[in-house]
Amino acid sequence: MKKTVLALALSSVAFASSAVAADMKIGVSIPAADHGWTAGVVYHANRIAEKLEAAYPGLDVIVKTSADPGSQANALQDLAIQGIDALVILPTNPDPLVNAIKEVKNSGTFVALVDRAPSNNDTSVRDLYVAGNNYGLGEVAGKYIAERNPDAKVVVIRGMPIPIDQARQDGFDAGIAGSDIEVLDRQFGNWNRDDAFKVMQDYLTKYDHIDVVWCQDDDMSVGVLQAIEQSQRDDIQYVVGGAGSKDMIKRVMDGDKMIPVDVLYPPAMVGTALAMTAAALYDNVPTAGVYTIDATLVTPENAADYYFPDSPF
Amino acid sequence: MKKTVLALALSSVAFASSAVAADMKIGVSIPAADHGWTAGVVYHANRIAEKLEAAYPGLDVIVKTSADPGSQANALQDLAIQGIDALVILPTNPDPLVNAIKEVKNSGTFVALVDRAPSNNDTSVRDLYVAGNNYGLGEVAGKYIAERNPDAKVVVIRGMPIPIDQARQDGFDAGIAGSDIEVLDRQFGNWNRDDAFKVMQDYLTKYDHIDVVWCQDDDMSVGVLQAIEQSQRDDIQYVVGGAGSKDMIKRVMDGDKMIPVDVLYPPAMVGTALAMTAAALYDNVPTAGVYTIDATLVTPENAADYYFPDSPF
Repeated sequence: MKKTVLALALSSVAFASSAVAADMKIGVSIPAADHGWTAGVVYHANRIAEKLEAAYPGLDVIVKTSADPGSQANALQDLAIQGIDALVILPTNPDPLVNAIKEVKNSGTFVALVDRAPSNNDTSVRDLYVAGNNYGLGEVAGKYIAERNPDAKVVVIRGMPIPIDQARQDGFDAGIAGSDIEVLDRQFGNWNRDDAFKVMQDYLTKYDHIDVVWCQDDDMSVGVLQAIEQSQRDDIQYVVGGAGSKDMIKRVMDGDKMIPVDVLYPPAMVGTALAMTAAALYDNVPTAGVYTIDATLVTPENAADYYFPDSPF
Repeated sequence: MKKTVLALALSSVAFASSAVAADMKIGVSIPAADHGWTAGVVYHANRIAEKLEAAYPGLDVIVKTSADPGSQANALQDLAIQGIDALVILPTNPDPLVNAIKEVKNSGTFVALVDRAPSNNDTSVRDLYVAGNNYGLGEVAGKYIAERNPDAKVVVIRGMPIPIDQARQDGFDAGIAGSDIEVLDRQFGNWNRDDAFKVMQDYLTKYDHIDVVWCQDDDMSVGVLQAIEQSQRDDIQYVVGGAGSKDMIKRVMDGDKMIPVDVLYPPAMVGTALAMTAAALYDNVPTAGVYTIDATLVTPENAADYYFPDSPF
């Protein structure tokens, strides 16, 4: 790839005002749509692949989905055999895939890593790292609740006991710092709809007054809303989730009182990585680096920008 | 802009496989070429503007240069009057321009801020922030010297006493930590060729043995090399600068022993911001966030990727 980019950079002098139509191949390796968020990743990878192929006539984007690290390592080999100039990868599980990714990178291929970072996420593994802002996801939610209900009684549903969850909790605590918010409880819901339903049922039994639920994940919001509805209680004012699922964004757009806002951790970030990778190949701009996508607060005013009705997520 | 992006997102369903040729206007406001690095910014802004206009047929990019904050505020007003959908701005001086930038942003225009951040660099000022890695620039240089000459006597030429310089110094100290490197001196050279020449002359008088010079800036490297040459001393093995100027990258490419490497803080980052802004307008990928460009170590192996012979810098 490096030599090709140089050739493009030099040739751009001659062809400055016409589209550079050099033939380039980008491989995209992502998890199979095993749950809502990754289904969104598959949708946006294909959506942006089509847009970029239209913008850059010589570009071919190959999207491959894999169910587990073993088959994803095979997918990387397949892509390498096809002769890709760049790889965009969202690993099913990053650490077991480090060697397979390094093999691609060491052959001179540009590597953009998305979302899930290996323990040692440095430039030996990838050129570009694109991810959401987990601390920000918690902080934005905390600030929203603290501003709207500065003395709310809040129950929290955590994800799993891993660093992503801890970063979200730390951000939330920073977001509510200085308010009179009382956090009644924090149980793990494993980013799972059914588990969140059970945790919320437990909270509804234990606490006779709850103002707000922060569950930091739109899949879990579904379970939480179900539990609240079954309880027929009206003390809970609203639920703040996170990610930016189609259904939750739609509720925000429609002014649903129980889902007044959402906080982005968008699966479309795979498209951001893909667009930057095309820019690396065709425009020779510096792209190696770390790109942290904002945890944007989605409100009725801006929700339409983040609503993809054809996405499965 | 927001509504237009939505319209594009929706229309992309119908036109998925053809180029979206919607008319869009991006304003680029950058400093006039007052010294080497900003001359590079002007060059790359125009280079990438042409490339993106070729890739997106409906796109119009207007590049305006300004000598000072007053005239840059006027340039922003001019751009706003022309009806831009997005703004890419590298401020001459960020704090005096915050209100002018906010005015553009509050009208619904996407704002990408490059390199120079105001004191309060949050989402009220910009959607996207693209910058180099000052800490990394020092750390990469420190690591290179520590690995190659773990017991070197090093003189350092600082920039100006502002946070950018402090971050570079902190990174350098982290990079050499654990080695036996002795830092003989650290004087300010104001990122200026002539000042660096004088500081280096002073060092050459004060210290009868110097192994390596770290001056973290390619303009200052020119002055340092001049002082060394005039002294006719042969104890100094090499100089490590930073930024990625055409002349220094060429020396690295050519295997010049005095400039064996360079560390990137590339003016082409304005092109990165411009490419992401086009992706925001045409591809509806999440672009709001913070993009930190790597301080890549430029070696004879990869120097060609960063060499722009037509650039003034």
